[in-house]
Amino acid sequence: MFNFEFYNPTRIVFGRETVARLDTLIPAEARVLILFGGESAEKTGTLHEVRTALGARRFMEFGGIEPNPSYETLMRAVALVRQEKLDFLLAVGGGSVIDGTKFVAAAAEFAGDPWSILETMGQAVTRALPLGAVLTLPATGSEMNYNAVVTRQETKTKAFFASSHVFPRFSILDPVKTYTLPAHQLANGVVDAFTHIVEQYLTYPAEGRVQDRFAEGLLQTLIEIGPKVVNEPADYDSRANLMWTATMALNGLIGAGVPQDWSTHLVGHELTSQFGIDHARTLAIVLPSMLQTRRASKHAKLLQYAERVWNISEGSDDARIDLAIAQTRHFFESLGVPTRLRDYQISAGDIDTLVSRLEAHGMTQLGEHQDVTLAVSRQVFEASL
Amino acid sequence: MFNFEFYNPTRIVFGRETVARLDTLIPAEARVLILFGGESAEKTGTLHEVRTALGARRFMEFGGIEPNPSYETLMRAVALVRQEKLDFLLAVGGGSVIDGTKFVAAAAEFAGDPWSILETMGQAVTRALPLGAVLTLPATGSEMNYNAVVTRQETKTKAFFASSHVFPRFSILDPVKTYTLPAHQLANGVVDAFTHIVEQYLTYPAEGRVQDRFAEGLLQTLIEIGPKVVNEPADYDSRANLMWTATMALNGLIGAGVPQDWSTHLVGHELTSQFGIDHARTLAIVLPSMLQTRRASKHAKLLQYAERVWNISEGSDDARIDLAIAQTRHFFESLGVPTRLRDYQISAGDIDTLVSRLEAHGMTQLGEHQDVTLAVSRQVFEASL
Repeated sequence: MFNFEFYNPTRIVFGRETVARLDTLIPAEARVLILFGGESAEKTGTLHEVRTALGARRFMEFGGIEPNPSYETLMRAVALVRQEKLDFLLAVGGGSVIDGTKFVAAAAEFAGDPWSILETMGQAVTRALPLGAVLTLPATGSEMNYNAVVTRQETKTKAFFASSHVFPRFSILDPVKTYTLPAHQLANGVVDAFTHIVEQYLTYPAEGRVQDRFAEGLLQTLIEIGPKVVNEPADYDSRANLMWTATMALNGLIGAGVPQDWSTHLVGHELTSQFGIDHARTLAIVLPSMLQTRRASKHAKLLQYAERVWNISEGSDDARIDLAIAQTRHFFESLGVPTRLRDYQISAGDIDTLVSRLEAHGMTQLGEHQDVTLAVSRQVFEASL
Repeated sequence: MFNFEFYNPTRIVFGRETVARLDTLIPAEARVLILFGGESAEKTGTLHEVRTALGARRFMEFGGIEPNPSYETLMRAVALVRQEKLDFLLAVGGGSVIDGTKFVAAAAEFAGDPWSILETMGQAVTRALPLGAVLTLPATGSEMNYNAVVTRQETKTKAFFASSHVFPRFSILDPVKTYTLPAHQLANGVVDAFTHIVEQYLTYPAEGRVQDRFAEGLLQTLIEIGPKVVNEPADYDSRANLMWTATMALNGLIGAGVPQDWSTHLVGHELTSQFGIDHARTLAIVLPSMLQTRRASKHAKLLQYAERVWNISEGSDDARIDLAIAQTRHFFESLGVPTRLRDYQISAGDIDTLVSRLEAHGMTQLGEHQDVTLAVSRQVFEASL
């Protein structure tokens, strides 16, 4: 096990009818900005519940935060916060809204050019407004971590930052809030959480038994509940387990003390920025090919994955690894998530562009061994056609 | 899954040579009290390392905190803290020292009679001195929770309190610090952590898949590493996994959203207070008999435990449950931990006293169904003879 530090002060309030708890979680004198995405927050009644819970507090609202939240949009929220002297941010939505809110929290208190928050990957952040979240879409884990991804539209650049100043003070996780989600968003959530876990698990053995067992348990849970999550809109238990799994998948716990990969995410980002494919769907395309392409360096862990996650214990090493990767692909497809570039009309002729984008973004040495070069990424794209 | 709240702000600093990190973890202007137990903290060099790491900070030391830390001893530390206006407490030791330090932290800032901290089970605590810990004995999980058990010697009463004000600000977990521990203390640590997990897992199914998989993974880890932990004093990886498992066993995570039992602990407490048996050893005596006695109400979860923890999938339900309980007892015995009252010269004639102690302490309706009456506890003692 590697040396590590683990710190996560976000308070999770989990369960039915927990939105009303906002009244005790947000200071009575706070001047609140509610941030949200599209119209669903209003239509589903969640915004109404939030407003009711805030009681006599002064609050304003800022809607329209996009999937892959844009720097340009968020800077308008920053301007509003400063102008109106708002001092508590409440994200109501999924990972994009919460990521965006983290950026607003840091940027509103930032003296220089806020873009440098992203250029320094958060190192420049020394303070931030307090923020909380009401999670409506389980997937990214943003509700219990200090990371955020922001996209600069003018340059099609996905930029990442992390700072302990932007941990949500609390996140409210009510599984009932997911009942109204469309199936494709839930499927995306399952794939996103699944891939987050794999990025921290499927590397090389490092004697992190606790971390491995936790990761395997989360993967098994997603495999068990995935079909119900997508097909049964009002099944509380599967939604609750999805929500808690997705949070645990990226709150720092399973990755503490073990090697991490993240190449699938970084390669997938180019598919989002170039072709607008949903984040989770890029992962479904890239992950099976990434595992296939790097099966030699991930050999031991792929065998462990085959046995402990997919119960595959028969056949040669190669056969077991083949089957485990095939099962992974099949699992994503079974949820209605395509796993091929051709499903998005992307062909071999587009690969040069994708590789040059990776190069332009400095993504030339990815993965737990920094051996995912541009040549390897090219192989991954080719294997994904 | 039940509604739950999860909050744990303790910073874990894990790994080799991490004691030096105290210099960045404790404020430079702090007036520190180092609290420890017996002479081993000095002999092993840990206290020396701690003093070095504190650098120019003013500090005092308070040794002699007992296993099952006593109210009387701790109140002497409270007097010292107040007299010398110390403002940061650093526990160096295992669960008893950390539990004791939590009490000192709360009592030193408490206006009324500090015993009422325990009488109110922590409800009366509104503030506490900040505390940190250097863990030397993995077992109780006190390094990452807000619980403490304190014993009043004059009345032989074990009293419990919990307060979010006494979460350690940080805990340093260096597995190398366990190399010098005697085998019986390590065995106790394995049993203690194992039972903490079982108390939160082996109840009844509640659709907490994440919690169940985490609990099973921790139990499997203890079963795998237990023999190495006890027999190989300098095996870093098994000690690291023990340390992280014991912390995860009682930091609130696996018990969030699922039913909890704790009857084994509460029944075992009487064996400690009446006969002075080590806490963990009382658990090894009580747990197998408790599971046997309550096998009907725990039927479904016992079968799950048999299959997922012990890989027992053959035979009738009863046979599988019998085998799982027998394996549990065998596991404890294999670590050198006895599981029978007769191993401590306690006989049938002592049971009346034990049951009357339970009654005097109000322990008449224990367990996840509150159905562990005095009659059930008597059965458990009888089955433990």
